[in-house]
Amino acid sequence: MPIYAIGVDLGGTNLRIAAVDERGTLLEKTTTGTQVVRGRDFVIGEMCEAIRATATKFSSSTLAGIGIGVPGIIDMDTGMLRESPNLPGWADYPVRDEIERRLGTKVILENDANSAALGEKWLGAARDYDDMLMLTLGTGVGGGLVLGGRVWHGMRGMAGEPGHITVEPDGPACPCGNRGCLEQFASATAVLRMAREAIARGDSPMLVRSSEEDPEFGAKVVYQMAVHGDHAAREIFRRVGWALGIGLADLINLLNLPIYVIGGGVANAWDAFLPALLEEVRKRSFVYRATAPGESSGPGKKTIITRALLGGDAGLFGAARLPMLLAEATTHEFARQHA
Amino acid sequence: MPIYAIGVDLGGTNLRIAAVDERGTLLEKTTTGTQVVRGRDFVIGEMCEAIRATATKFSSSTLAGIGIGVPGIIDMDTGMLRESPNLPGWADYPVRDEIERRLGTKVILENDANSAALGEKWLGAARDYDDMLMLTLGTGVGGGLVLGGRVWHGMRGMAGEPGHITVEPDGPACPCGNRGCLEQFASATAVLRMAREAIARGDSPMLVRSSEEDPEFGAKVVYQMAVHGDHAAREIFRRVGWALGIGLADLINLLNLPIYVIGGGVANAWDAFLPALLEEVRKRSFVYRATAPGESSGPGKKTIITRALLGGDAGLFGAARLPMLLAEATTHEFARQHA
Repeated sequence: MPIYAIGVDLGGTNLRIAAVDERGTLLEKTTTGTQVVRGRDFVIGEMCEAIRATATKFSSSTLAGIGIGVPGIIDMDTGMLRESPNLPGWADYPVRDEIERRLGTKVILENDANSAALGEKWLGAARDYDDMLMLTLGTGVGGGLVLGGRVWHGMRGMAGEPGHITVEPDGPACPCGNRGCLEQFASATAVLRMAREAIARGDSPMLVRSSEEDPEFGAKVVYQMAVHGDHAAREIFRRVGWALGIGLADLINLLNLPIYVIGGGVANAWDAFLPALLEEVRKRSFVYRATAPGESSGPGKKTIITRALLGGDAGLFGAARLPMLLAEATTHEFARQHA
Repeated sequence: MPIYAIGVDLGGTNLRIAAVDERGTLLEKTTTGTQVVRGRDFVIGEMCEAIRATATKFSSSTLAGIGIGVPGIIDMDTGMLRESPNLPGWADYPVRDEIERRLGTKVILENDANSAALGEKWLGAARDYDDMLMLTLGTGVGGGLVLGGRVWHGMRGMAGEPGHITVEPDGPACPCGNRGCLEQFASATAVLRMAREAIARGDSPMLVRSSEEDPEFGAKVVYQMAVHGDHAAREIFRRVGWALGIGLADLINLLNLPIYVIGGGVANAWDAFLPALLEEVRKRSFVYRATAPGESSGPGKKTIITRALLGGDAGLFGAARLPMLLAEATTHEFARQHA
């Protein structure tokens, strides 16, 4: 009987559910809106209903398990969300236990950025590597660290938050309580803030016009203006690259990973921030200079900094991968104990 | 036949060699000066001679192997030192191959700060934990990351350099090429630089007097003056704690480890920098706040920040531990393959 897993990506806007087989083939994907305003119980109910519907459809196959990516910091000790800005009212509630109770089966809860990292490791930009780190530049800056093919959770599942590396100790306040986090320079929210700052400084008539006339004014529009050569808009993405370069230099010096993957909406501005990013990384990381692609760093494996490949599906694939990894771990453990 | 390992700590000043048994009992320790000025070949010759003498003395026991901690960044691909400020002329030289050729046996080369971390994990402050990070506050700031009981090397052995996390992007220049590294605020060298800056600003008559009269003027003297209440000296250690707090907040948010160990000479000023350190970590790391020791962070495992226990012997014990871990890994691999 063919084996498949169910992956769920529970976002603040959309709820997406996929059935994925062991080789990563997408068997089915459904998307519905997340009616966050109707409250936690309603959303969990809708999700469990959709999971049941998918499982029923594939009842002739073997379900390896269910993985659920959620936008929040998960305390693996308790199965509760510690922080969940996009799911107001979900913090300090036993989310995992409640889903398991309603479905009558075990589920694996994972932070959405960790799921995305695992997806890119399995089927995307880092598929040839066992160790990788992913940065997701969205409304915030999420991250996921994968070591030995598995998400590195740390002691309580709260690891993998490179978006809250301090880039500028006295920089803009971050909702996390810190100041000058990477997230305050490299998220879509940060791009918009920096655009408003440039407008307030009178730096760009083009930005002013666009912000007044374009109802969709946001990071994407600022990027389009950078492409069209607006100086202030270009400076904003130089700043994005500067901050990413500082954060990546820290990560490279600490972890010496073979590959760092950058995804999320702001990664679409890749060409606008990459030059500044590489300049900072070269200047600030001697480990990078010793391992940079190209002749000057000598022989040996190289440090890759690259774009994500799976787009918005990374988290969905990663969530589906979770129960498969658990099954593999169980098999290995069995083999080890009976060796 | 009893089993033991030889650990070597090759410093810029001293060469130390120990015989250690499997339970961590120190069987013998010898210390000689490292005559760095007589050159690489001479020092390697002296070291090999001392290793041979120790092995001869314990010839009735089984030698598990030889581990050597060296002050430099080791490229594990090539067995060469990439950076070695305390061993001038050793960079880009096949150190490991040359030692193995002279001894006629395999040796394990390891960065000295990684060895110290492994020593503290095996027998010191982190002996009850599998995952830990150590910061060594000496002339520079070294570091070692231990995951699953083993040093995390990254792809080429260059991982574990938290001393070069950027704390202040436009801060003092670091020999590594970066600016504002943790090392520029939390090393003995940094304490001395900050003392000279305070003297130049005319902040402390006591510091001026001491720097003129005390031939041993350095980080230790500045600490003694902080203990005696000198405002400028206290401010310097507040700055040490501030920088350590920023670096640790980054590490805690990224790795969520159970324990962070701080050693090296400057750690003797623990009480002078700890309050500022904890203030910054609390403010800057939401992961720390969710896991801080004490009631407010709720149930679950706690994040420990603590002092190293083994002093200058940590690196020596860690070096001896290296061949034992290799032997264990080989046994596990054998069991796995024959399962």
